[in-house]
Amino acid sequence: MAIVLGRNRYGKAETRLVHVGRGGDSHDLTDLNVSVALSGDLAATHLRGDNAGVLPTDTMKNTVYAFAREHGVGSPEAFGLLLARHFVAAQPQVSGAKVSLESFGWERLGPHSFRRSGDFVRTAVVTVAEQGTQVVSGLRDLVLLNTTDSEFHGFPRDRYTTLPEATDRILATAVDARWRHLPESAQWEESFAGAKDALVEAFVGTYSYSLQQTLYAMGERVLRNRPELAEVRLELPNKHHYLVDLSPFDLANPQEVFIAGDRPYGLIEGTVTRDDAPPASAEWYL
Amino acid sequence: MAIVLGRNRYGKAETRLVHVGRGGDSHDLTDLNVSVALSGDLAATHLRGDNAGVLPTDTMKNTVYAFAREHGVGSPEAFGLLLARHFVAAQPQVSGAKVSLESFGWERLGPHSFRRSGDFVRTAVVTVAEQGTQVVSGLRDLVLLNTTDSEFHGFPRDRYTTLPEATDRILATAVDARWRHLPESAQWEESFAGAKDALVEAFVGTYSYSLQQTLYAMGERVLRNRPELAEVRLELPNKHHYLVDLSPFDLANPQEVFIAGDRPYGLIEGTVTRDDAPPASAEWYL
Amino acid sequence: MAIVLGRNRYGKAETRLVHVGRGGDSHDLTDLNVSVALSGDLAATHLRGDNAGVLPTDTMKNTVYAFAREHGVGSPEAFGLLLARHFVAAQPQVSGAKVSLESFGWERLGPHSFRRSGDFVRTAVVTVAEQGTQVVSGLRDLVLLNTTDSEFHGFPRDRYTTLPEATDRILATAVDARWRHLPESAQWEESFAGAKDALVEAFVGTYSYSLQQTLYAMGERVLRNRPELAEVRLELPNKHHYLVDLSPFDLANPQEVFIAGDRPYGLIEGTVTRDDAPPASAEWYL
Amino acid sequence: MAIVLGRNRYGKAETRLVHVGRGGDSHDLTDLNVSVALSGDLAATHLRGDNAGVLPTDTMKNTVYAFAREHGVGSPEAFGLLLARHFVAAQPQVSGAKVSLESFGWERLGPHSFRRSGDFVRTAVVTVAEQGTQVVSGLRDLVLLNTTDSEFHGFPRDRYTTLPEATDRILATAVDARWRHLPESAQWEESFAGAKDALVEAFVGTYSYSLQQTLYAMGERVLRNRPELAEVRLELPNKHHYLVDLSPFDLANPQEVFIAGDRPYGLIEGTVTRDDAPPASAEWYL
Repeated sequence: MAIVLGRNRYGKAETRLVHVGRGGDSHDLTDLNVSVALSGDLAATHLRGDNAGVLPTDTMKNTVYAFAREHGVGSPEAFGLLLARHFVAAQPQVSGAKVSLESFGWERLGPHSFRRSGDFVRTAVVTVAEQGTQVVSGLRDLVLLNTTDSEFHGFPRDRYTTLPEATDRILATAVDARWRHLPESAQWEESFAGAKDALVEAFVGTYSYSLQQTLYAMGERVLRNRPELAEVRLELPNKHHYLVDLSPFDLANPQEVFIAGDRPYGLIEGTVTRDDAPPASAEWYL
Repeated sequence: MAIVLGRNRYGKAETRLVHVGRGGDSHDLTDLNVSVALSGDLAATHLRGDNAGVLPTDTMKNTVYAFAREHGVGSPEAFGLLLARHFVAAQPQVSGAKVSLESFGWERLGPHSFRRSGDFVRTAVVTVAEQGTQVVSGLRDLVLLNTTDSEFHGFPRDRYTTLPEATDRILATAVDARWRHLPESAQWEESFAGAKDALVEAFVGTYSYSLQQTLYAMGERVLRNRPELAEVRLELPNKHHYLVDLSPFDLANPQEVFIAGDRPYGLIEGTVTRDDAPPASAEWYL
Repeated sequence: MAIVLGRNRYGKAETRLVHVGRGGDSHDLTDLNVSVALSGDLAATHLRGDNAGVLPTDTMKNTVYAFAREHGVGSPEAFGLLLARHFVAAQPQVSGAKVSLESFGWERLGPHSFRRSGDFVRTAVVTVAEQGTQVVSGLRDLVLLNTTDSEFHGFPRDRYTTLPEATDRILATAVDARWRHLPESAQWEESFAGAKDALVEAFVGTYSYSLQQTLYAMGERVLRNRPELAEVRLELPNKHHYLVDLSPFDLANPQEVFIAGDRPYGLIEGTVTRDDAPPASAEWYL
Repeated sequence: MAIVLGRNRYGKAETRLVHVGRGGDSHDLTDLNVSVALSGDLAATHLRGDNAGVLPTDTMKNTVYAFAREHGVGSPEAFGLLLARHFVAAQPQVSGAKVSLESFGWERLGPHSFRRSGDFVRTAVVTVAEQGTQVVSGLRDLVLLNTTDSEFHGFPRDRYTTLPEATDRILATAVDARWRHLPESAQWEESFAGAKDALVEAFVGTYSYSLQQTLYAMGERVLRNRPELAEVRLELPNKHHYLVDLSPFDLANPQEVFIAGDRPYGLIEGTVTRDDAPPASAEWYL
């Protein structure tokens, strides 16, 4: 038996980049949080502290800023591809690069004025490796709620089950969604907008018997509407709203007054996929 | 010398209340975080553990939920007044009540569907005490940014000053604003919308030589537009955006690529007031 | 009626300073988060953007770092006094300075190795102004829990009261304590250690009929043990632990299995003071 | 082409459980955050809202509390095994269960008094599935710092590299470590204590030429000391401490005054493994 180095990678996380486009009459604003992780033959630094193959993470940060000036930023997916391809090409010992981006939205208030929009964070994860190039887009923290058209019943009961069957409840979640692109995908803005709209429309329009059913409907809608996507992964907390028992105060509570609970919460995770989609070439849930 | 009890209060903090109005064709949603603090003659419990005058904080929570059903919720200011007046009237040993509310916005997506809006959190602090009733409204986490029309120069320099003078910089802040109402104020929704708009318009429209100047312009605009308000308090972090030095890479950076800094940050705090406003009857900065 | 500038101040918040003392055989580590706020005649910048009296907040940051080198750091209270006195003396238009410090503890693991201790954060707020100099020390996030010796009963009941009387309950809180020094106080380390120990001992040793009673006992113990202190302010959340009802599963639950609740929580705030203490010369609850 | 359901699971996350052991003269306290995720044949609920196979997440919560009473809690690994095996056995349509636990430490202050220890959070992830049973232990948020014995040089330089070579720097990280047990492992408390000590000792005792080297030394030490473990995974942020340039103030800074940076940070991830270890039977990085 020997002790050996297993999988590893390293990089610079959370480089905060704000880019101002000043070309036209009104300015454009791009606001990103960029994380880079490189992999390859890194045994020498792990085993002997020999850094001949270790491009400093400080250089990765510099590259993010310099590339923003040299190439502009554009869509997070495109900027991630540019960076990932650069790192794999630039260093012989680097065989893989993963670039993860968060994009914060800003709503225009005037030619050079903006308000940060907190409705969701857009995400992208680009992986360039020997097995191929993979682009995953997504969003998180999109909080949706239906006040009705949600039921939950017909479930099995065991010794520890006390939950009553519900024929009308609030359904609320904070959408964390990621979707993997097919190789031909390239219209990043149109694709993102379409996927986001599909998620919202399916949540709003589904009469739900379980959050799982809503999850599947959301993923299916995305794939139906967006032929450039292979697979959708959804992580949906069930943000419970508990009907308050007002009977001690001689008050009825006809689905009107609720406690918004913090913990615990349900957590529904699932993938919806095309059955003929090529397999993923890199992890994309992490 | 003796050791004595000084100022004190107690209550239930962060009762999360969601109210669904189901009266019409489409539902209404109100989402509040309610904190209650009561004061009065509470020496017995502090000194001897005698709780004869200590209405349980659990009862305060129950009251929040029951009142939402009995009276509806409406504006946070109105709901806070209702609760605060109730607690002062209901218990002989309670002479003062402070009700603090956070209101989370939801954007309508359909007759019974909503998306949480993360652009800011609306706040209200209502104090009912022997000295009078005071209503403070406000908002926090409203992030605004101008890409130009901001300068900072002409400042004094001492031994520790290295900052260059700036004739063009990004100005960004996360607005934390509170405004105190005059006694006759009552149109809470209109007042809030008007104050918020005044803050945003003044930020956008002010050519700024310091964040202090912008702060004053914002407060002044609120008071000019809203005669029902006595005083505005603003707490404005200066969210620094540092121009990246790209010269090591033979690149110019004409106000295009910035680092969004986390810490440290400037913090500008100031009050703008009517010179004939009645004094505050209770703390309202806490 | 005119609109006028009211109270205001400005400064640099959250300058993160780590100081390594390398004098002896083993290194010393000091880890601070320093915030500076200056006040004085600042009307010109608010009204006209004239910054002739506005020492840049960047200079405050530089001063924090330079002073750490020139004078060392020592106790947070002493470092805060040094900084506050400097700012008031250095700029004619500055008449008041408030320096707030957080100090993060590190436990020694070796001559030059440390582990960050997360048991609490030590705090200090130093205010130097025309009215005098005030030093407030404190701590926050010290979480204490007694599994018994806590009761709560004898409280008034109104229409909305459902809480049963409790003769045995868990009592848990996260201590946020601040104490104001008398002018002669100067032994900052001994004073801090003594006050902290007094808080813990009183929490542990008090058979409690209400968290208010425990609060008073904690404050009183600090003042009894520490003659250099004038006043103690405590902010104690009642971190509720709910006994789980296991009767649906035919199980008793003799004070054994609890839900640790997040929200809502009780919040008990109170001051314990010497009746002959000089009044505070500056706000210290903010 | 068809759209189909892919991998999925569901459960109750973050059930907060506090257990008080009252058997002896002094009480014992266990404080856990328990998350359960079940997988199996769940197509019916996703596709048709048929919940006949969907044990409610509310039941999972109840089971956590009831089991704490029926069986006690003990080590997080043992409690996780108990729960995971129960869920797989109890429901025919459930073929896999993953139980993730966070354990919060409390230091004893007296027979029934405790202080929460914030030095790290202990973790465990237990997976019971058709492929076998897997136990992973770990910790996170353990912040370690060496003030010297750390260098970083000899790295490659490209067009975007500006980092100077360092022959003496602060090395600091917040350890996030997980280690996978071999099937025969069962002494959970001894194993955890030993692994934690090995991590700390290797960090303290390694003269480091890169954080990667320190990472490998930490993982190797764990495996050397703990024969019951198969594999260690480490995620180590490089918490940068920047030496402040005090030369504008005519001050030298001989490794004394540092800025503790927030973002960006390096992120070093790696696995150290026995070359004869059986492969993992379930994901354990999520």
